[in-house]
Amino acid sequence: MISVVILGSGNVATHLTRAFLKANAIDVVQVYSRNLKNIDYLKKRTSITDDLENLKDADVYIISITDDAIDEFSKRFDVEGKIVVHTSGSVSMNALKGNYDKGVFYPLQTFTKDTKVKFKKIPICIESSTKKGLILLEKLASSISKSVFTIDSKQREKLHLSAVFVNNFANHLYQIGNEICEQNNVPFEVLYPLIKETAKKVTRLSPKEIQTGPAKRNDVKVMEKQLSQLSDHQKEIYKLLSASILKTHK
Amino acid sequence: MISVVILGSGNVATHLTRAFLKANAIDVVQVYSRNLKNIDYLKKRTSITDDLENLKDADVYIISITDDAIDEFSKRFDVEGKIVVHTSGSVSMNALKGNYDKGVFYPLQTFTKDTKVKFKKIPICIESSTKKGLILLEKLASSISKSVFTIDSKQREKLHLSAVFVNNFANHLYQIGNEICEQNNVPFEVLYPLIKETAKKVTRLSPKEIQTGPAKRNDVKVMEKQLSQLSDHQKEIYKLLSASILKTHK
Repeated sequence: MISVVILGSGNVATHLTRAFLKANAIDVVQVYSRNLKNIDYLKKRTSITDDLENLKDADVYIISITDDAIDEFSKRFDVEGKIVVHTSGSVSMNALKGNYDKGVFYPLQTFTKDTKVKFKKIPICIESSTKKGLILLEKLASSISKSVFTIDSKQREKLHLSAVFVNNFANHLYQIGNEICEQNNVPFEVLYPLIKETAKKVTRLSPKEIQTGPAKRNDVKVMEKQLSQLSDHQKEIYKLLSASILKTHK
Repeated sequence: MISVVILGSGNVATHLTRAFLKANAIDVVQVYSRNLKNIDYLKKRTSITDDLENLKDADVYIISITDDAIDEFSKRFDVEGKIVVHTSGSVSMNALKGNYDKGVFYPLQTFTKDTKVKFKKIPICIESSTKKGLILLEKLASSISKSVFTIDSKQREKLHLSAVFVNNFANHLYQIGNEICEQNNVPFEVLYPLIKETAKKVTRLSPKEIQTGPAKRNDVKVMEKQLSQLSDHQKEIYKLLSASILKTHK
């Protein structure tokens, strides 16, 4: 049995708490939030607190708060001999400042508070300053997910950078696609299966292999025709991405 | 029973032929290809030909060849009183030049020849020059798909344009994400669930609503740090898409 204290009440903290409460091998001994109201709904299932002086004893302390606050927050409690982890993709393990073992427990997924999440399939990237810590985090991660990766801070930084392209930027392209549909009274939903299939395909074949479209073919006629239908703002993106595809595939 | 002749042996033609052969309400009376070898595997199941003079009688003739060839090809056979359709997303219905009813039968999906496709979920966009033709195409499309949309040539052009963003360009971003992972010895597969979830999310919520990331938050510190880790080529794309997200959400 691994005992954990979760510190935070944001999206990731909420989903993690839910998952750990369900896991048989894990004992959620306490949840902390600055604002008790945020975690009031948990009081029948675990101890809740807004006081860092009253933290219970546990094997792992999970700090799941905004990136910028991790550094300062991590100095504020004393749990010597235990392991303290944060859950951020972009913050180094060394941002944790205190007299304890350090680690990272980063579930790589996009979380929305009200949407249910199947943790089993979410990759969890772990890292620790000690071997003992890594073994513990491995067990902790495996209790909720089938997909656990040991990734150091440097690699995690790159993973997070890559995620900006495949998640944030890809979503922005969906938004431009949606915009084009709305401007022309075409139902965007017609494109849902294409969007999903494109995303599924890269899990079987490399994205370079499956690239298609006018830029890949260097079909200047089609590209010029399409450019003429776009707003200036859309045009810039179309041009740059087409040039980049062409460059990649020439 | 609707009888069809399929003209072509590319990706779309192959998948359509397979789907229609399975559909109870459809009789595939013939498949045409310039090169008989391409369709030899079909000869036990239907008539095959490489001679446009020997086309059989059918209700619908489906031209599924490269976009540029449709215009010329459509003049080469005489099936007065019948309906002739093409399957292209980017070619107008009026590219069909002949003395027959005209139409479009455009399955909006990315096809790979060797990958199986579930037609039931693929949106089919139909259009016709006559009411009679539209009713026939509606039946034809419904025999293989649950998702049939009446979309005119103008709308289809915009849909195709939108698809360039959500499919071709999104895939290119996956490729850059993959590149960043490879350059830094991080397994790209860690990102598969994120890629799939991002694509699935836009089918429930609008892409504008679910935008996240440093650009959306205007987190200059993170953006500068990330930019410093990219190649010049990646940098340009990062800058332009970040600026575009910021502009959209400010």
